[in-house]
Amino acid sequence: MRLSLPPKVTLVEVGPRDGLQNEATPVGTADKVAFVDRLSEAGLPVIEVTAFVSPRWVPQMADAADVLGAIARRPGTRYSALVPNRRGLERALAARADEVAIFAAASETFSQRNINQTIDASLATYREVCRDAAAAHVPVRGYLSTCFGCPFEGPVAVDRVADVAARLFDLGVYEVSLGDTIGIAHPGQVAPVVEAVAAHARVESVALHFHDTRGTALANVLAGLLAGVTTFDASAGGLGGCPFAPGAAGNLATEDLVYMLNGLGVATGVLLASVVDASRLAERAVGHPLPSRAYQVLARA
Amino acid sequence: MRLSLPPKVTLVEVGPRDGLQNEATPVGTADKVAFVDRLSEAGLPVIEVTAFVSPRWVPQMADAADVLGAIARRPGTRYSALVPNRRGLERALAARADEVAIFAAASETFSQRNINQTIDASLATYREVCRDAAAAHVPVRGYLSTCFGCPFEGPVAVDRVADVAARLFDLGVYEVSLGDTIGIAHPGQVAPVVEAVAAHARVESVALHFHDTRGTALANVLAGLLAGVTTFDASAGGLGGCPFAPGAAGNLATEDLVYMLNGLGVATGVLLASVVDASRLAERAVGHPLPSRAYQVLARA
Repeated sequence: MRLSLPPKVTLVEVGPRDGLQNEATPVGTADKVAFVDRLSEAGLPVIEVTAFVSPRWVPQMADAADVLGAIARRPGTRYSALVPNRRGLERALAARADEVAIFAAASETFSQRNINQTIDASLATYREVCRDAAAAHVPVRGYLSTCFGCPFEGPVAVDRVADVAARLFDLGVYEVSLGDTIGIAHPGQVAPVVEAVAAHARVESVALHFHDTRGTALANVLAGLLAGVTTFDASAGGLGGCPFAPGAAGNLATEDLVYMLNGLGVATGVLLASVVDASRLAERAVGHPLPSRAYQVLARA
Repeated sequence: MRLSLPPKVTLVEVGPRDGLQNEATPVGTADKVAFVDRLSEAGLPVIEVTAFVSPRWVPQMADAADVLGAIARRPGTRYSALVPNRRGLERALAARADEVAIFAAASETFSQRNINQTIDASLATYREVCRDAAAAHVPVRGYLSTCFGCPFEGPVAVDRVADVAARLFDLGVYEVSLGDTIGIAHPGQVAPVVEAVAAHARVESVALHFHDTRGTALANVLAGLLAGVTTFDASAGGLGGCPFAPGAAGNLATEDLVYMLNGLGVATGVLLASVVDASRLAERAVGHPLPSRAYQVLARA
C-alpha cells in the first residue's frame, strides 16, 4: 500500500505568536523581529507574527505594533496577527497586518475558561470583526480549539466541532484551523473530524493544528494528509511549551514537520536549515532548550 | 477515508537491553530486575531482558545471567536475550532465556563498524547460533539495522534490505525486526521496505523498530500499521537515548506507542499506567529525565 498524499502543502508558522505567547520568559522586540525575519528567509508562506490583545492579560504581546512595523516583509509571505475584537482589528489594520485570526472553541467550558466568553458571545464579537475586516479587504482565519478533546469536558463530539466550524465559515473566515489544544489527539480521530468540518466547506479550507504533547503530532499530520488536508500549523523549534512542564512538548515543531514532509516528497517551499537558524535565535531568547526533536539533531549537526 | 488497521499488535519491549545498554550510567542488577518485573506486570508479551555479550565491550550487560535468573517470570510473557555467537547462546540457554535474538545490518559499512564483521561473516556465525538454538527448541529473532538509511553509507537500497532479511529467514529466524537505527525514516519508506521483505516471508514475520530521533517514530508506526505490520519494538520511557545528545530521543517510547494504539483501538494487552511505573523506576536508576513525550505527561499526572 502506497500512501496517497497531496503534492504540496501550506505551512502556517505560529512560533512568534502562539509560541512566544506561551513562553515564561519575555522576549525583547528586537529579538522577535529578528526571529520573524529569519522565518521569512526560510520561505514560510504564512507567519503569525503577533497578537493585538490586552497587554494586561498577555504582556508578551504588548509590542505587537512595533514588531509588525519593524519586520522585513518578504514578497510571498503573508504576515498575520491574532485579534480578539474590533479594537484589536483596528490596531492590526493600522499596523498593516496582511490578515488576522480569530479564536473560538468547540468546547463551551474551554471557551469560558480561556476567553471568558460563551461560544455564542465570542461568535457575536467575531461577526463584527469579520464584517470590518471584509470592508478593509483583509482575510480572516479562524482557530477552533479543543477539536479533539477538552481538558475540562473530555471528549468533544465531532458534530459539535463541525457546528462551530460551520458558524465560523458563515462569518466569512477563509480557513478554519482545527486545534488539538492539549495534544491528546490520535490519528484515528483526524479523518472523522476533518470530514465533518469539510461537509460545510472545501477541504482546502481546513487546516490542522497539532501539539506534540504525547508524541503523536506527526502521526496525526500523516492522517491529515491522507484525509486530504493541505494546510498545517507549526511552531519553530516547538516553541510554546506545554502546560504540564517547562521544556516539555507543546506545539508541533516546524522542523519535525518539514523533515517528515521533505522525506515524503510533499513540497512546502520551506528551507529546513533556515528554520533551524531561526530557532537557534529563539532558543537563546527564551533561555531553555527547545523541544523539537529534529531541531535538537540539526542544531548540533 | 478511514484508516484500515489491524485489531491487535504485539509489542516487543527492548528497554532493559537496547535501552539500558545505550545509557551512560550503569544500572545495578537489583534495579534491572525490578524494572523487568514492572514491565512484566504491565502485560508486555515479549521483553528483551539482557545480552550475553562480552563484558569487555558491553559492561552494562555483564550481569546478564544474574538478571535472567532473578526476574519473576509472568506466564504469557517471553523473556529474550541478545546473543552475538554460540558462546552467548550457551550462556543464554543456561540462564533459561525463552528466546534469543541475533543482530545483522543491511549496510556493509555499518556491520563492520558496529560488530566488526562483514555481513557475510556475521551470517555465518548466526547460522551456527540458529542451528544450536533449533536443537534446543529456542526461537531466534533477527534484528536488521540500518534498513531506512545508514550513518556511513546514506540511503540503503530496499533490495539490499530484502536480501539480508531473506538470508536471516533462511537461517530459521521466526521474525525479522527492521531497524531505523539512526531515526531518519519517514512514513513513505515504510510500505516499500515492508513489502520487499514480506516477499520472502509472511508480513506477520516482519517487525518494525523505530527511533524517535527526529519525531517521526509514531508516524512511521502508523505507516507500518497501514502496511499490515503487527509487531513493533519500543523502549519504556524512550530509554536508550540518542547518539547525538544525552537526554535527546532514541528508541520509540513504549508509552507513546501504547498511547497512540489505545486511541486507535488497536489492542496491545499492555497497561499504560504500569509502563509509566516501570519507567519511573528506570528514570531514577539512570539519573536523567526520560525523553518519552507521553511518559513526561503521565508521570506528572
